[in-house]
Amino acid sequence: MTMTTYHTPIDSINTDIAASLQHLINSKTKPIGALGALESVALQVGQIQNSLKPVLNRPAILVFAGDHGIVEAGVSPYPQAVTAQMMFNFFAGGAAINVFARQHNVALRVVDSGVNAEFEPTEQLTHAKIARGTNNFLNGTAMTLAQCEQALTTGAEIAYEEAGAGSNVIGFGEMGIGNTSSASCLMSILCDIPITNCVGRGTGLDDAGVQRKGAILEKALAYHHLDNSEPIKVLAAFGGFEIAMMVGAMLGAAQRNCVLLIDGFIASSALLVAAKMQPTILQYCIFSHCSDEVGHQLMLNHLHAKPLLNLSLRLGEGTGAVLAYPLVQSAVNFLNEMASFAEAGVSEQSNAS
Amino acid sequence: MTMTTYHTPIDSINTDIAASLQHLINSKTKPIGALGALESVALQVGQIQNSLKPVLNRPAILVFAGDHGIVEAGVSPYPQAVTAQMMFNFFAGGAAINVFARQHNVALRVVDSGVNAEFEPTEQLTHAKIARGTNNFLNGTAMTLAQCEQALTTGAEIAYEEAGAGSNVIGFGEMGIGNTSSASCLMSILCDIPITNCVGRGTGLDDAGVQRKGAILEKALAYHHLDNSEPIKVLAAFGGFEIAMMVGAMLGAAQRNCVLLIDGFIASSALLVAAKMQPTILQYCIFSHCSDEVGHQLMLNHLHAKPLLNLSLRLGEGTGAVLAYPLVQSAVNFLNEMASFAEAGVSEQSNAS
Repeated sequence: MTMTTYHTPIDSINTDIAASLQHLINSKTKPIGALGALESVALQVGQIQNSLKPVLNRPAILVFAGDHGIVEAGVSPYPQAVTAQMMFNFFAGGAAINVFARQHNVALRVVDSGVNAEFEPTEQLTHAKIARGTNNFLNGTAMTLAQCEQALTTGAEIAYEEAGAGSNVIGFGEMGIGNTSSASCLMSILCDIPITNCVGRGTGLDDAGVQRKGAILEKALAYHHLDNSEPIKVLAAFGGFEIAMMVGAMLGAAQRNCVLLIDGFIASSALLVAAKMQPTILQYCIFSHCSDEVGHQLMLNHLHAKPLLNLSLRLGEGTGAVLAYPLVQSAVNFLNEMASFAEAGVSEQSNAS
Repeated sequence: MTMTTYHTPIDSINTDIAASLQHLINSKTKPIGALGALESVALQVGQIQNSLKPVLNRPAILVFAGDHGIVEAGVSPYPQAVTAQMMFNFFAGGAAINVFARQHNVALRVVDSGVNAEFEPTEQLTHAKIARGTNNFLNGTAMTLAQCEQALTTGAEIAYEEAGAGSNVIGFGEMGIGNTSSASCLMSILCDIPITNCVGRGTGLDDAGVQRKGAILEKALAYHHLDNSEPIKVLAAFGGFEIAMMVGAMLGAAQRNCVLLIDGFIASSALLVAAKMQPTILQYCIFSHCSDEVGHQLMLNHLHAKPLLNLSLRLGEGTGAVLAYPLVQSAVNFLNEMASFAEAGVSEQSNAS
């Protein structure tokens, strides 16, 4: 029996249908190109689904949560306990992601990938804990390679479950005090960008805090001395469990031909790892927004990504992905519902200017 | 009896409530400021409604349509007949604005402000025709001052009707082949910006077409020789009827304390006129997007406006306003539905960095 898992190859999207899709887009009653970025999204979703009539089914948002040993070094203005406290907030429906997921009827699944607390089973919680938080990566790897493999495998399985439940568009979000530190390290190595350009305020550090965080991460990078040739080693070194599981889930969702909605700084750092393992994944990604976290724009540049929103969000939880979802739906809707010039009896543009 | 009309003063929004609103926003379970532009929108809508629990009711989009005598000079790649053809497309539900209004349950009202055709009554059509198209403003004013007053008055009345029907958030869109020419002239005079920086491709002119359009508008501006001291004269000189009626509707909607969703280049040119008449109107405006039409960014700068979306849209019809609407709803929803730190038992940020 062949098992599908996170390293099963992702199929390339169908580029043969691109010309037909573009023709359909151009036939709609609007000036050529007038729907801007929505036209690119329509083209992409049509190619992903290999269809001139793409449909978005059961949109889902996966929020992976985990704790980080590096927090003990003082990289965040919030205590580690906030990760667990926010889990209860998710379960009670009071967090930002709950509000936006309700608004847009997006199925929310919260995954305990490695929070330093125990939770009673609840409807929205998936128990997938690897351990109660990662190790401090200042003096060792955040996780073992075996734990990293386990997180990747579990993430892929969670994505398969969502696809099996009917979702063909999945957003990726996270919660984890300290995880901008992990993301900054992943970014620095995988994009080959100096750490000072990858470090930001996170949940709200002041200038001195940012400087201290940068110095700490500089030390950690020197300690591990890794390059971008072995992304799994980099992921295991800097964590966290929620990022590793998200990498697996992204790979699994792309294997199932889902549209991937990439949230902000942390989710994009997970995608850096996934794209290093399987570059084809990028064909499935819609970048939802550019975060106010300082490194995100550089990360997006590295991925040649143009995000849909630029609202100075820096909340995480997948909020940007869910806020951008209606735009993706609009792209599909115009493709399916707008009349063509011929159908509506509208004169087309003359060639003479 | 005192009649309310377009020049009835607009009340200033309540700034006293700003501190309470900001405190409420900051109490929500997220880092301070982490919802970026949505926090500004929440603050603004709360002030407009003078409420810590603002509600958006019966969102509406008004699409004003009119024809333009200047089209005979060759400023558009589309024939004038397209304005009327697109009206039938609106009635049949096949235009982009129909698709997006359906998606977001926004009430669509199409107003014939001055299309060069006659229409049978239909449910979505408001007959408010001033005349069958404006005059060519190359050799006279687009409309008389009396026609301009009539359009302003009618526009205000349409807004009162929408507010009377329960709408407290109204978007403004338009359809009219040739109307980027009107908007460019209004912009040049009211922002005091040379016409070459105000002229763009409209529905799709090539470089030579843009250059010719600029030369034509330069001549028209020289002919009328107006400055920004008398906005109604400027409006009457360059039109069109749909723009003038939109100016009145914007003023009327702000008088009724509605949230105004400003669409793209044409709608913003109407707002320039309205704001010249009553600067207070700007307190009620949410700028939905930055158009790909080249002058729009300069216009937004002039208005000190930060739009929510930047998707290279240049379609008009109010599409940008309706596409941005869910973000406005998200802003109101997070204010009303997110738990506070105290409610959720989440630790707040420590003051030490």
